[in-house]
Amino acid sequence: MRWEPGARERLQAAALELFATRGFEQVTAAEIAQSVGLTERTFFRHFSDKREVLFYGQEQFLQFFIDGVDAAPPDASPFGVIASALDSATSFFSDDRRPYSRMRQSVIDENPALQERELHKLAGLATTVAEALRARGIGEPAATLAAQSGATVFGIAFAQWIREGERRSLSDIASGVLHELVNLTGAAVDHQAEQLQQVTGGRLRHGAIQ
Amino acid sequence: MRWEPGARERLQAAALELFATRGFEQVTAAEIAQSVGLTERTFFRHFSDKREVLFYGQEQFLQFFIDGVDAAPPDASPFGVIASALDSATSFFSDDRRPYSRMRQSVIDENPALQERELHKLAGLATTVAEALRARGIGEPAATLAAQSGATVFGIAFAQWIREGERRSLSDIASGVLHELVNLTGAAVDHQAEQLQQVTGGRLRHGAIQ
Repeated sequence: MRWEPGARERLQAAALELFATRGFEQVTAAEIAQSVGLTERTFFRHFSDKREVLFYGQEQFLQFFIDGVDAAPPDASPFGVIASALDSATSFFSDDRRPYSRMRQSVIDENPALQERELHKLAGLATTVAEALRARGIGEPAATLAAQSGATVFGIAFAQWIREGERRSLSDIASGVLHELVNLTGAAVDHQAEQLQQVTGGRLRHGAIQ
Repeated sequence: MRWEPGARERLQAAALELFATRGFEQVTAAEIAQSVGLTERTFFRHFSDKREVLFYGQEQFLQFFIDGVDAAPPDASPFGVIASALDSATSFFSDDRRPYSRMRQSVIDENPALQERELHKLAGLATTVAEALRARGIGEPAATLAAQSGATVFGIAFAQWIREGERRSLSDIASGVLHELVNLTGAAVDHQAEQLQQVTGGRLRHGAIQ
């Protein structure tokens, strides 16, 4: 059992290429390994199964999010903490990762089981960030609202970042999406003040926003 | 093949009871049918499998959401439309449904595959609502942001509604959670004005909110 320098990275690159060209279901772990001159046994020393190739690095990404939560000043508002978390999380995806991320997404988009796994991952992210917010003394529902909004902003920004022709950094896009969310809710409040007397609808429209 | 009046409702109630007491995996469609004096064949006339019992009515719920989007005045802001959608969607869950919803959730919480299906459902809801918002002329990322925020508010409110001891209506709870979201983003903007000069962090913290 020799040590193979860079084996994990070579396996990842080869797997993604094969998944993208032949379809995730049609590729075996042995074929991935063979395509870069490695054995199936070496593949399984690095990944528990071929799906794991696509989700490797997930804990590290989550840690970037949490590091951003921890980096926010103690008196930051819940959305201030989320802005700091997004700042850190988006730095995980430098521009040289964009082609890989784009190809990975195209593989996931073709496969419902991988999509469910990806959804599950984003939900898990929001749960973990909400815990980190509660640990800072932020109550509910604020902690969950802020954490899920952060996951929403990240997801929208990421989808835009990997679109063909997009050149802005993920950090810039996420900043814009977060701004947009703040503007949208702000517009709702302004609109409410103007229109409160015109509203005839149900309880939510009376009580909250128009 | 006789027509069985109320067969669907009796099968649903019996299935939920059996899932809750014996565990989802341990119950067969035949047992569900037998427990209310019906045949397995009758079960499969109403549901394609036992999982469907838990997700029946989903299209109807989604339609309530979309009806609320359609009911919003033409000039409503994106979050105004979401408030209207939540108003309509929460009316789907009257207080007499609470014990059923609570028991259903306890079954889903015990089973990872059912949890993934539920996540998938909420994601699909957000996608459909975003489409309805775009059909009203709302652009991106506003449409997706508002739709996903609506799904987030609904999810948080629903989890609170089925908590033991909770007596408020789903509509009242959702109204409060939506308010909280507006306040949170509003607080972020106020806080930003105060602290902008103190901020030394990254781009998001500079550009958006503290």
